[in-house]
Amino acid sequence: MAVGDVTMPHMHVVQGVKIGSAEAYVRYPNRRDLVIFEFSEGTNVAGVFTQNAFCAAPVHVSKAHLAQANPRYLVINTGNANAGTGKLGMQNAQLTCLKLAELAQIEEYEVLPFSTGVIGEQLPIERLTQGLQPALDSLNENAWVDAATGIMTTDTTPKGASEQFELDGVAYTMTGISKGAGMIRPNMATMLGFVATDAPISRELTQQMLKTAVDQSFNRITVDGDTSTNDSCIFAATGLAGGAEIQSIDDARYSVVVDVLIRVMKRLAQLIVRDGEGATKFMTVAVEGGHNTQECCDIAYSIAHSPLVKTAFFASDPNWGRILAAIGYAGVKDLDVEKIQVWLDDVQICKDGGAAVDYTEAEGARVMAQTEITIRVDLGRGQAKDTVYTCDLSYDYVKINADYRS
Amino acid sequence: MAVGDVTMPHMHVVQGVKIGSAEAYVRYPNRRDLVIFEFSEGTNVAGVFTQNAFCAAPVHVSKAHLAQANPRYLVINTGNANAGTGKLGMQNAQLTCLKLAELAQIEEYEVLPFSTGVIGEQLPIERLTQGLQPALDSLNENAWVDAATGIMTTDTTPKGASEQFELDGVAYTMTGISKGAGMIRPNMATMLGFVATDAPISRELTQQMLKTAVDQSFNRITVDGDTSTNDSCIFAATGLAGGAEIQSIDDARYSVVVDVLIRVMKRLAQLIVRDGEGATKFMTVAVEGGHNTQECCDIAYSIAHSPLVKTAFFASDPNWGRILAAIGYAGVKDLDVEKIQVWLDDVQICKDGGAAVDYTEAEGARVMAQTEITIRVDLGRGQAKDTVYTCDLSYDYVKINADYRS
Repeated sequence: MAVGDVTMPHMHVVQGVKIGSAEAYVRYPNRRDLVIFEFSEGTNVAGVFTQNAFCAAPVHVSKAHLAQANPRYLVINTGNANAGTGKLGMQNAQLTCLKLAELAQIEEYEVLPFSTGVIGEQLPIERLTQGLQPALDSLNENAWVDAATGIMTTDTTPKGASEQFELDGVAYTMTGISKGAGMIRPNMATMLGFVATDAPISRELTQQMLKTAVDQSFNRITVDGDTSTNDSCIFAATGLAGGAEIQSIDDARYSVVVDVLIRVMKRLAQLIVRDGEGATKFMTVAVEGGHNTQECCDIAYSIAHSPLVKTAFFASDPNWGRILAAIGYAGVKDLDVEKIQVWLDDVQICKDGGAAVDYTEAEGARVMAQTEITIRVDLGRGQAKDTVYTCDLSYDYVKINADYRS
Repeated sequence: MAVGDVTMPHMHVVQGVKIGSAEAYVRYPNRRDLVIFEFSEGTNVAGVFTQNAFCAAPVHVSKAHLAQANPRYLVINTGNANAGTGKLGMQNAQLTCLKLAELAQIEEYEVLPFSTGVIGEQLPIERLTQGLQPALDSLNENAWVDAATGIMTTDTTPKGASEQFELDGVAYTMTGISKGAGMIRPNMATMLGFVATDAPISRELTQQMLKTAVDQSFNRITVDGDTSTNDSCIFAATGLAGGAEIQSIDDARYSVVVDVLIRVMKRLAQLIVRDGEGATKFMTVAVEGGHNTQECCDIAYSIAHSPLVKTAFFASDPNWGRILAAIGYAGVKDLDVEKIQVWLDDVQICKDGGAAVDYTEAEGARVMAQTEITIRVDLGRGQAKDTVYTCDLSYDYVKINADYRS
């Protein structure tokens, strides 16, 4: 069960984006496991991909194709990650693009492939390519929810976000979907995110906006610290809602769009944590008072990754000793323990590096009874801050990751 | 239950080392929770301590005292870590040394204090210091098992190792104890190790030997990746068994002693992993074929820390995809996936970065049925290698760390 509100909002249509899907029987029969995005001509597309040294075949192909041109199509399958599949895996990713390009009468490099699912097995390439025409036949503007559902692996809920905004009197839409429930769920790889807007943005700036937004969203979440071989995030700007193209960060509209993108991507990223394997609590780890953002980020991740902190939250135990220990081994130099303050929401549990004197068990129990809790840490040595999002570590995490074969 | 053979061996007496203990009621009544080591005059002592930025009060005091002189006494309490305890914690650690120094008629700086147990509570300093005289009264050479039992927190078994060896016709003994079951068990901090020999070794070389041995033992284990605020390891050489002092690494006896120390410390460190929280399997992660030792170590730890790899082993699932992903995010540059080989003991599960063609499920099931398994990774790009030791991640890890208050 996902933590908190994970309701799919109304998914506003993005002009210039059509979505199709089909049952390709990649892994299981009778499920729409193949999804296609079609972008109108002139759409500017940006992408960021996993830093894992062993990225999957579709990641290699997507990066190469994206470097050549703006893609007109994305093709996404679930059920099989096409990772650890060697030369045949590369051929299959390329063949998928080639077949779709033939059917859609475009160039092979105008297709980006994405795969998610089991690692180390070859794609059922015949069934997959046979699904391309039916998916193309079903293309329509109103299929965002189908897409969110189609790309799920062991997610318990489809994930979407959608906003409308105005720039210089013109109305625009930004809509996106994501998937993922652990960095790698039971042999099921991958976090994926796809966001599109009908605002007009230059190609260079789509990449810059995407990088900025990912660093505050998908790059600030963790379920178990494992980084997938397939993680990918795409941002597309069709420009079809009109207006002059945003070509400079000095354009006042730039920051408006970036803010919308950050909000949409934060929501999509947080939905992944809320659906984290076995999660019972959604935790925001906010570190402030640092010398620089990097050390705040390092400490926030050190806390968010600590199995001891995560199990303490599962047990509703406000254990500041574990939090302090995690701060201490984050590798940040010259920390002064006597300047450290730690709060759980409004309850201070650690003051000047020791137990907060006026803390009471009743207050701790109250805040720990919540399903959404902010751990706030003040390092007391500067003005920088950073925030990451995570979930607790429960019996079910072990169960999900240990028992999936049974 | 600890994994595999954790039997306490015969603990040979080390000439010049006496051990005493007493019931000080630090946390629980009726348990010998205070242990004292007495070293004969002229004993050379070396120490290594936690890298955690928030080291506990006794770690600060031990480091400062050790820098001043060779200690004559170690005083160790369980039940309370004296960590996160501020100025009063420092005073209590110092007071413990002062009281023992008065009773033993030595200098305060000739005592090193060690604490393990709950974080964030003050030591019951009166009860603790009242236990010092009874502990001194019980000093004797044959109490190594008592010491191993006395320093336990939530360890399920006392941990000891002992060897006898010969240098130039003189017989020597090396005996040691350790404690720890997670890097920090349920609010119970600390890994501790104490090893002594009656071989004659210069002070400078005891430190060098200790550093070498720790880097292959206590610094190569992980249960949950959390690093305690109190971790400490001490090596003492009394010299009482006779022979000329070893003063140079060119002395042929140096490498003999280091090898014994490495074996003793590896055993003591591995006992901690075998007693890891909820452990059902003991895993050796051996990485070879690297450009340098550091990258082999980084990759071995990346595998050993991965919750997904650890749960897969708990589930007896030979999941090479998770191992490959963990190798990929270890941060090692320019890895060539097609050169990677992975074995579980003698069974190759991953060949040239993909599924090993002649691998069978039956072979995987056979090796996974063992309680002791070696994951061997060949990076195929050099001659360096390194090894770390870890355990699997089970329901009981979560249970132990989440439920200890109930």
